[in-house]
This record gives sequence, structure tokens and C-alpha cells, in this order.
Amino acid sequence: MLYNINPLLSPDLLHILRSMGHGDQIVIVDANFPADSHAQRLVRLDGANATQALEAIVSVLPLDTYVEAPVHTMQVVGDPQAVPEIVAEFYQIASNGPGGEVPHQSIERFAFYEQVKNAYAVVVTNETRLYGNVILTKGVIG
Amino acid sequence: MLYNINPLLSPDLLHILRSMGHGDQIVIVDANFPADSHAQRLVRLDGANATQALEAIVSVLPLDTYVEAPVHTMQVVGDPQAVPEIVAEFYQIASNGPGGEVPHQSIERFAFYEQVKNAYAVVVTNETRLYGNVILTKGVIG
Amino acid sequence: MLYNINPLLSPDLLHILRSMGHGDQIVIVDANFPADSHAQRLVRLDGANATQALEAIVSVLPLDTYVEAPVHTMQVVGDPQAVPEIVAEFYQIASNGPGGEVPHQSIERFAFYEQVKNAYAVVVTNETRLYGNVILTKGVIG
Amino acid sequence: MLYNINPLLSPDLLHILRSMGHGDQIVIVDANFPADSHAQRLVRLDGANATQALEAIVSVLPLDTYVEAPVHTMQVVGDPQAVPEIVAEFYQIASNGPGGEVPHQSIERFAFYEQVKNAYAVVVTNETRLYGNVILTKGVIG
Amino acid sequence: MLYNINPLLSPDLLHILRSMGHGDQIVIVDANFPADSHAQRLVRLDGANATQALEAIVSVLPLDTYVEAPVHTMQVVGDPQAVPEIVAEFYQIASNGPGGEVPHQSIERFAFYEQVKNAYAVVVTNETRLYGNVILTKGVIG
Amino acid sequence: MLYNINPLLSPDLLHILRSMGHGDQIVIVDANFPADSHAQRLVRLDGANATQALEAIVSVLPLDTYVEAPVHTMQVVGDPQAVPEIVAEFYQIASNGPGGEVPHQSIERFAFYEQVKNAYAVVVTNETRLYGNVILTKGVIG
Amino acid sequence: MLYNINPLLSPDLLHILRSMGHGDQIVIVDANFPADSHAQRLVRLDGANATQALEAIVSVLPLDTYVEAPVHTMQVVGDPQAVPEIVAEFYQIASNGPGGEVPHQSIERFAFYEQVKNAYAVVVTNETRLYGNVILTKGVIG
Amino acid sequence: MLYNINPLLSPDLLHILRSMGHGDQIVIVDANFPADSHAQRLVRLDGANATQALEAIVSVLPLDTYVEAPVHTMQVVGDPQAVPEIVAEFYQIASNGPGGEVPHQSIERFAFYEQVKNAYAVVVTNETRLYGNVILTKGVIG
Amino acid sequence: MLYNINPLLSPDLLHILRSMGHGDQIVIVDANFPADSHAQRLVRLDGANATQALEAIVSVLPLDTYVEAPVHTMQVVGDPQAVPEIVAEFYQIASNGPGGEVPHQSIERFAFYEQVKNAYAVVVTNETRLYGNVILTKGVIG
Amino acid sequence: MLYNINPLLSPDLLHILRSMGHGDQIVIVDANFPADSHAQRLVRLDGANATQALEAIVSVLPLDTYVEAPVHTMQVVGDPQAVPEIVAEFYQIASNGPGGEVPHQSIERFAFYEQVKNAYAVVVTNETRLYGNVILTKGVIG
Repeated sequence: MLYNINPLLSPDLLHILRSMGHGDQIVIVDANFPADSHAQRLVRLDGANATQALEAIVSVLPLDTYVEAPVHTMQVVGDPQAVPEIVAEFYQIASNGPGGEVPHQSIERFAFYEQVKNAYAVVVTNETRLYGNVILTKGVIG
Repeated sequence: MLYNINPLLSPDLLHILRSMGHGDQIVIVDANFPADSHAQRLVRLDGANATQALEAIVSVLPLDTYVEAPVHTMQVVGDPQAVPEIVAEFYQIASNGPGGEVPHQSIERFAFYEQVKNAYAVVVTNETRLYGNVILTKGVIG
Repeated sequence: MLYNINPLLSPDLLHILRSMGHGDQIVIVDANFPADSHAQRLVRLDGANATQALEAIVSVLPLDTYVEAPVHTMQVVGDPQAVPEIVAEFYQIASNGPGGEVPHQSIERFAFYEQVKNAYAVVVTNETRLYGNVILTKGVIG
Repeated sequence: MLYNINPLLSPDLLHILRSMGHGDQIVIVDANFPADSHAQRLVRLDGANATQALEAIVSVLPLDTYVEAPVHTMQVVGDPQAVPEIVAEFYQIASNGPGGEVPHQSIERFAFYEQVKNAYAVVVTNETRLYGNVILTKGVIG
Repeated sequence: MLYNINPLLSPDLLHILRSMGHGDQIVIVDANFPADSHAQRLVRLDGANATQALEAIVSVLPLDTYVEAPVHTMQVVGDPQAVPEIVAEFYQIASNGPGGEVPHQSIERFAFYEQVKNAYAVVVTNETRLYGNVILTKGVIG
Repeated sequence: MLYNINPLLSPDLLHILRSMGHGDQIVIVDANFPADSHAQRLVRLDGANATQALEAIVSVLPLDTYVEAPVHTMQVVGDPQAVPEIVAEFYQIASNGPGGEVPHQSIERFAFYEQVKNAYAVVVTNETRLYGNVILTKGVIG
Repeated sequence: MLYNINPLLSPDLLHILRSMGHGDQIVIVDANFPADSHAQRLVRLDGANATQALEAIVSVLPLDTYVEAPVHTMQVVGDPQAVPEIVAEFYQIASNGPGGEVPHQSIERFAFYEQVKNAYAVVVTNETRLYGNVILTKGVIG
Repeated sequence: MLYNINPLLSPDLLHILRSMGHGDQIVIVDANFPADSHAQRLVRLDGANATQALEAIVSVLPLDTYVEAPVHTMQVVGDPQAVPEIVAEFYQIASNGPGGEVPHQSIERFAFYEQVKNAYAVVVTNETRLYGNVILTKGVIG
Repeated sequence: MLYNINPLLSPDLLHILRSMGHGDQIVIVDANFPADSHAQRLVRLDGANATQALEAIVSVLPLDTYVEAPVHTMQVVGDPQAVPEIVAEFYQIASNGPGGEVPHQSIERFAFYEQVKNAYAVVVTNETRLYGNVILTKGVIG
Repeated sequence: MLYNINPLLSPDLLHILRSMGHGDQIVIVDANFPADSHAQRLVRLDGANATQALEAIVSVLPLDTYVEAPVHTMQVVGDPQAVPEIVAEFYQIASNGPGGEVPHQSIERFAFYEQVKNAYAVVVTNETRLYGNVILTKGVIG
């Protein structure tokens, strides 16, 4: 436990967030995501759901303001305009960080999978709600 | 996620529980416990508290019926007879496993620390209640 | 030994099954299969045959209901419609898991080999019956 | 699979048996034995019981003829003269190897544990019969 | 760079501070200290001096309120009552953390070296002022 | 030393032969062969020549009966029909194994080198006779 | 601390600079640069800024006189002729080394990123000024 | 120190020379060569120059008599026919080995760099003369 | 293969002999010796017997002239004055090295085992003659 | 090669010298010293003799002025007052460093060996003169 640091930010997760730089991506995935086979670096948060993990991460992680959107979610298959409840929660939490409101974007499922493979790290949660996956792009602090 | 297996039992935790044998001990510790400096093997469950971790573990782990008590908690310093609420919960949960009711014992603080150093593994939780640490001794299945 | 967990699920095998996600594949192979040269991760079950291994695995592994068939076997060379006895057993055991009946598919021998190379893990058994190999695709638990 | 070699002798087990020399000990233990915390080297044979493992090992391993007894079993607690059925089977199988009949000895439980800690290797089986553990001392071939 | 986290807290240093528990010690040492030969874990901060390092660390690290003093400095050889300027600065900075004022203690030089060997980690700085070494004992957050 | 196992089958060589499966290849090479730069796995038998090594290996290794020839030797450069004396010995020894007579084939020098790169393992001997290299393809035991 | 060696040259940084040869490149990057995901070898100098790091490095590193320019900086996006203040400082410091004045060159942002990926090593600083990144090409000492 | 073995042949260098086979190449490079970034295996001889290293190596290494030339040097840029004094020394020393006179060849600078990347090993010396680099191709001993 | 180096001196064995210094010991053991459990470093020469190994080693290894005897053999149990034929061969071969005649000594069996545990390295041969073990102490070359 | 750094200071040697602190010791040993079996960290300088190595090291290493003597040599056995020529050279070179003249001390042979075992690192040279070994204790730079 450390002062001013959300307890979900474990030693490995803090190490990863601090090592990332401008443009590097971190992904929060649900309990059924094939995380181990897609991740370059993996952190498990088996006792937390995806929105708790997101809240912890955005409390310290600056989001990128140089790209169209630093928050990517997965489009509902067959209904790309739909916004599942958990995705709406993701958008709200992401804009609650110290950096304030940020734009978001949903991307097609297989494009999402490709981004995960190239992401800096993946955080596995016990989330079971559908579409409970979100990609964050790190920004800068000046 | 697997059928019939509590989602808090992560890959590493399952591996440890399955590798343990008769008499090996596993310890669930709170968020302030010096776990890394005392553990021979360490698993983090940053999103769960100690009672959730205990519930998950006793759902699969047989407790030792050949010893006086397979459940050890830490005595309250200065009041060895006291039973803090979380310790009472530990006793109840430990007896809810498939093996049924088991005896428990509280041990002096430094004896507790010594057992942790010799234990097979330590599970770190985000527990913040005082005395939120418990040692389990594995039993046999025949 | 753990409660409610088939003893053939060794520490390494449990770790692998729990780490896999939706769409990841695990393969059970016979005693003559070139497992080590084809597997990304390898677990040996030298004392069990392929049907025992399958029974143990499907007791905890959800099979994928989003694909045409989560169970792939190898077609008999020269007689793709044939169903060897062990393959019939595979189909029956795979449908005995907690998820109930699942569709299956036989695939051509070299396509089978390619899937093994890309699979998450391979389990080696002491099976000596011909065509004693089966690929399982993990599904989701919600 | 190799000619003339029992299929339970896995790659790791063959490596260990061939690396051992005169006086080195290998232990076959049951499914509840605390093998990982006591073994210097560990091989798992999750699908085989202790007598199958013993039969496989003595098919290649010479037993020591320079010591009082190259086969050690664990004395029944409280009845050191008792010979449980599985122990009787151990004695018979151990004398069925290419080296012929060998003497055996039962030793006190804690002395047995000490020998396991100093043994060259431990083989874990799925044996569930009580007293299903046996220590073998390697001999010479001239 | 992360929000609300001092930039001197590098990935490795954050990992260490977060992994420590109640009673674990971290030591900040000067540029001439034999750190590598005394440390169980080592982090280098070659661009910072000891007071900058201390300021960064106490911004997140709770100090132990259950011991006589969670801040230990090295006594001036031959003048144990002396308080070098840098030591005075250490005392002030240590009491500027979120936990407020904390007691301190100076200990004899060789006792200091012994504590370093047992400490959880050592942070090397470019400090060149004499007696520029300080030991911190982690406390709890509840 | 083990009963019924040729003493040239060292711990590493036994491990490799037992780990290979149907279709995997092992190569025995002479003392001048660039083994380390071509081998995926390497075993040294510095005290044995190539025919001794072959005799040891075929005493346990089944050769593939599903391919044109499980024994490949290197064609004499400029005289592809020639059969050097050591190659003739290879053919005879290979047919002396428990599986009986097997067909053989000589292949062009650079094709031979390519097969070595893809082979499961290479065994280095002290052979100094020209063309003292031979590739074996593992078969099945049913 | 060593005689005549800038204290910012840590053990790892000295090792890297001494291991580099003619034409190898080292990059100094700012605190927001995605260093870990782009670097083949990484050294952190968390307490120093980019100009301090440059000054330390050019005190020992010969710069390449066989190329057009051994010092590369990143062009201002949208204004390739601009020379930010920190870049001007880089140019001055780079020419203050024992080798004297050296030519420099600014390169387009994405070409800069590509060079970083191929560079021998990357040094992370706490620099927060924009365009605080510089690539150095090692020369020869005869 | 060993009888009949040049003291410059260190443990690692002897290991490499003995592991190489027919056609494998070893390169001796000067003090400014980018050795670490080009070598598959690296040995440092910081106290010897290139001609001393060559003399030590050819005292045990057979050179290839099946290729046009087992000794490659780098052509002088702009004057491919030139033979720098050190290159002339290389040619003489290479022909002083137990195998007697061998042909040599100079190759274009970038072709030389490519050969280094593919070579079995690189030996770094403290040579400072220009063109002080030489590639040797191992031959056979029959 | 290298000029003037006995082919039994494999890469690892050469590395060990060259790394040893004055007073370090190397042991040649027979095929039944418990080498792996007693050796700090192990080299296998599965195709050579103990006298061949000794001949190869003394061709390069200086023996210690500052001790009573640099060659130790094991006393025959029950007949300490006996000199088995292989021991006589050891004495003759050891005196055939470049350093000429050396004194020898036989030591009691358990003292021999203790020396093996402290020796720098052990060489395993396929020797099957009784008392086929010998310890060599390295000397100096000046 | 780096500016102002003796070329004998290889990457590993620089790393060690820079990592050492006040009171840590480094030892330069001759070609026959049992370095590998006595050293905690080992650097080889196979082409340099002991006085060259010493000259390179004291060009950067401060020697300890808080101890009786930061330079220890080995006493001549049987003549503790003797000062061999190489030892006299050691004393002169050690006083030629940037720190100026330093006291020296000769210590008994076995005490010397004990210090080597506890030293931070050992540097192996090709020195063949008797008593060509010297221990240096690092001092401080303020």
C-alpha cells in the first residue's frame, strides 16, 4: 500500500504504466479474453472487474491528446453503432482522470485483436460482461 | 474461466494449490503484510479481500485432519483470547469447504511470522482489516 | 489432490487450461505424435491414455459455441468419412462435459498438424490407438 | 516410444535414472505426499499409480547390493511390523527386476521424510493407497 | 511519467516500494557507499542526490508508527550526538510526507551497515555529502 | 548405467530419443561437421565413432516405415552412386535394430545440410572417416 | 565513483558505451518517449535531464567523423528549419567533447523513431522540454 | 595455463574454436569494430592485438582447404589492390600454422560486414591499426 | 577438431581445464559413480574409458609439484596396500604427460568422496573396471 | 574505445569498478591463480600482465585512505620481509594514480586467499612472475 496510489495498481502494473511512453497502449480485458496468447506483457487482476481496473489506471495514466481518440472499445458484432452499458461506463471513467474528458472510438473486432497483439501490455480482469475490453493510449505529461 | 472453479483461483494459484501436499501450508495475508520478504512463493490477488480469497481456496483445498488445527490465525497483541470479526469469519468460511467443519487455533504474532517463512506459498490480498491473515495446512484426499 | 478436480489435471495442465481464453486451442496427442517439435507449450501425461485425458480436460474446460465445431479430429487417410472407434469415443466424452453436447469435425491430416503448431498447448498421453489425437477450442463462461 | 523401454519412463524420468549413480536414491510417492516441498528433482507421473511406476523403474534400474536393503518403505505408524498390501506388492515388484530378488526394509515415518529430502529425485504418482511410498537405492552394473 | 507520481520514482523503484510491507526497510545511500555488495535489491538513481530521493520516496511511502523511529541515520564517528546538515534535512523531509511528523534515530555505523544487509532494497544516489545515508521502515495504510 | 540400455545412450541422448515422435529426425555427424551452427539440439559423444553411435541409437529407436527410407546418407560428391565403406556399415547396422531391415537413401550434400538444420537433434561423434554422417527418421511403436 | 569519469555514467551506461563500436548509435530520450518499446538496450537516468546526460556521454564517447553528421535531432513537426532551444544546446554540448566540433543534422520524426529502433541503446532521462531527444553515432579512436 | 596451448586461448575462446566445424568462420576485429552489434558469439581479448590473436588461433585451428581462400581481409576503401602492412602480417601468420601455407583474399568492406554477421564468433582485440580485421574459415583434420 | 589437441578434450572439458588454477582438482570417474550428485561441474565422456580420459587430460594439464602427490586414487576397501591393474595404469599415464613423472597416493574411500565434492569438476566415463576413479590436482606453468 | 579511458578497462571491468563502493576489494591475479574457484565475480584480461592491469585500474579507482593500507600483496613463503621485483612495481604503480602515494602491506599467503574469496571481483591476467597478485581496496571520491 502506498499513499495516493489506488491499491489495484500492483507492483507489476505500476512498473508497466511507468515504463510506457507516448503512444504505447495498455489493454484491459475480460475474464474470457485469450490474453496470454495475445499479450506481449501480462498482468492479472483476478479479483477486479474491468471498470475497477480502468478507474485505477486512469488515476495515474495520462491519455494521448495527439490522436483522434486514446480510448478504443470493441464494436458490437453486427451493430457497430451500439454502445453496451459497460462501454458507456468505460467512456465516463476514462474522462474522470486527472487529464479530464477524452474522446473515444469503437473499432471493429478483428482490428481490436490486432491492436492487442501490438500493445505494450494487457491487464486481465474477472470481468464477465460482454464487450468488457478497452484499449488506452498513453499521452504525455509536460 | 473454467467450469466449477472459483475465478479467484488464477493460473499461478491453481498451480500452487495442486502442487502442495499433505502438511504444506499456504497463507492469505492482508495488504500491509511484508509478503515479498517472507514468502517462498508469492501470488497476488490485488482485487480480492482475505475472506474472498479464503472462500476460493477452501473450495478446492482439503484441510489437514491429522493436526490439532489446520487453520491458524494471529493472536491479538495483548489480548490473546480476543476474536476479531474477520477472524470469526475466517473460522466460518474454513468450515464451509467440502471437507466440512475444521478446528482452528490462534498463535502468537512472531510464531505466525515464522510459519509464514516456512510456508509453501503466500497469497497477497487487498484486505485492510486488522488481523486479516490466515494460515491453512493442506490435508489429504483418499 | 484437490476437491472436485480430476487428478489427471496436474499443476502445469491446470495452469494452462486456466490461462487459455476464448478461441485458444489445446491438443491431446498419442504416444507417437511428434509433440515436442510441434508444441508451443507441452504437458506430459505419460500414465494416461487420450480418452482419460479428454475426460479430465472437458470436466473443467468450456468448449467454444461460436465456431462450427470446437472438437477437431484427424481424418483417416484415404477414407475421410471413416470414424475410428477412438474418435467416436472422443465425440461422446466431449459432449459429456458441463456444457453439454458439442459439434465435432474431422480435418485433413496436414491441416491437423498445422493447427497443432498454432495451438496454445499440447498434452502428450500414452495412447497407442491410431487417430488418438483431438483438438479442443476453448469457449466462454459468462 | 522406444523399443524395450516401458512407456512410463518419460524423457525426464529416463534422464534422471541414467544420471544417477551408485548409492543415489529415487523415491516414488503417492498423490498426497508433499513432493514439491521435499524433492531436489521432481518428475510427475499423474496417470500412473505407485506400483506401475515401480515396475517401470525397476525394469531398468539396478538396485544396490552393497547395502542392507535397497528398498525402503514407510513403517505403519503405531504398528511397525505391519505390512500393508501395497507394501507387499512393492517388495514383490522390486524383486522382479533384471537383478532378481532384493532385500527390503521399513523405516520410521520421519526418517523416511529425511531420506526423501536427500534423495536424488522424487516421482509423483496418482497413488491413493496408504503407505504408497517407496525409496530405491541405485546399484552398479559391471 | 504518471500523474501525481514524482518522476524520480522509476519503474523499478515503484515496484519495490509497492512490494514492501509493514516493517520492510529501504535505504538511500550516497555515491561512495558499497551498495552492490550490501544490497538484496538495488535501484540506481545516478542523477539525483539523497534528499531528492528521500523526498520522492516519502511522497508515497507510509512510515512505521509502531516502532521507536522509522527513520535511521548513521551516527558521526566519534561524535554520536552531532547532527550533520544533511541529516537534519533528512529529518525534515521525512516528516513532510502525507503521514506527517515521524521520530528519527541515529545508529552506530556498523549497526547501520548490518541493517543495510537485511533491508529489502537500496537506492543509490549521486550524493557526495558525508553521512548522506538514511534507512526508512515502511508502515501501514489502513 | 541402466539394464538393457546401451551405455552410449547418455542422459541427454535418452531424453532426446524419448521426446522425439513420428517423423522427427536425428543426425549422427563426424568430428569435423559444423554441428553447433546447424543443430537445433546438440549431444556430444566425443569418445565414440559414428557406427558405435548408430548401433546404440537403433537399439531403441524405431525407424519410420511410412516414408521411402528412414535412413539418409550423404552422396559422394561427383559420384552419387558410390557407397563408401562406412555408409555400407551404416546400412547394415540400421537394419540390425529391433524393427529389422529398413530401406536407405543417399541424398545430395546440400540437401543433407538442409535436413540437418531442420532435424530434431544432432549427435557429434569422433568419427573421422569421410561421409560418416547419417540421418534417421523416427517411426512408431504400436 | 571513479576518477575522471562523470558520475552520471552509471555501471550499465559505461558498459554500453565501452561495448559500442564504430557506427553504433546511442539515443538520449525525454521522459515521455516510448523508450522501453523502442529500445534494444535501455539505461535509465531518472534524475538527470537530456543535456546533463549528453554532457556526460560526450566526455568519453568519440563521435563519428566518417558520416555526414554524428548528431541527429528530431525536426520540429511542421517547421523543419526550426531549432528549439534545447536542440541548440545539444549542438553546443556535442561539440564540447574531447573530439571537438562535430556537424549535426535534424531528421524527420518518423525517421528518427526508426533510427531509435535500430540503435544500440537508449538512455531515458527526466527531460520534459519538447524535442529533447538526440542520437549519437560512435566514431573511432586511433 | 595448459601445456602446448597459447595463453591467449582463454576458456571461452578454446570452447568456441573446438565447437566450430568445417566451414564455420571466426573473425578477429580491431578495437573500434562494432563487434557486439554484429557478433553471434563474442570473446574479448582486451590485452592483445590482432596479430597476436591470429597467431594464437592458427596454432590450433585448421584452415579450410576446400574453399578458394580460408583467410579474408577487408579491401582498402578506394584502393582494392592495396595491402596494408598489418594485412601482409595476417597473411604471413596464417600460413605459419601447423597446416602450412594457405591462400587469402581481400573482400569489399560491406561484404566483410555481412560475413561477420554470419560468422560463428568474433574475437575483439585492442588492435588500433587500420584494416586490422581478418576472417578465418575452419577446415578439417582427418 | 583442433591441431595438437586430443579429440577427447571436448569444448566443455577444454573450458574447464583452462579455467582451473593452481590447486584446483578434476576427477575422472567410472560409469557407476554417483557423479551428478557429487560434482560441482560435470562433463560426460560417455564413449571413453577412464584411462583414455586420463591420457587426454594429462596431455595438457600440468600436475601440482608443490603437494605430496597430485594424483589420488581410491584405496581398495579392506586392502589399502593393493594396487589394482587400472590404478597401476593411472600412475603410468599420469607420469607420461609433458611434466614427466609425478608422485601418487591412494586415499581412503570416504576421503575420496569428500574430495570429489570439493573438486572443481568431474568427468564421467564409461569405465566399468573397479577402482576406475582418479583425482588430479592442477599445477603451474611458469 | 573511449576518450580518457585505458583500453584494458573492458566493458565488464568498467562495470565492476563503477559498481564497487568504499571498502570493496578487487584482486589482480596471475595466470596460474585458481581464480574461477575463488572469485565472486570474474573478469579475464588474457593478453595483459598484472602490472598493465594494475596501471589501468588505478587510473580510475580511488584507493582507500581510511585503512592502514589499501594495497595488499602476498608475503613470500618463508621470507615475509622479501619484496619481489613485481611487488615493488605494484607499490610504485599503485602510488601513480590520481590519488597519489598510498601505503601498502604484505599479508600471509592463506590470509591472502581468504581475502580473495571475500573480494568483490577478481581480474585474471597472463602474468607468470611469482607473487604477481595484488588486492586493492576502493576509497571514496568527494
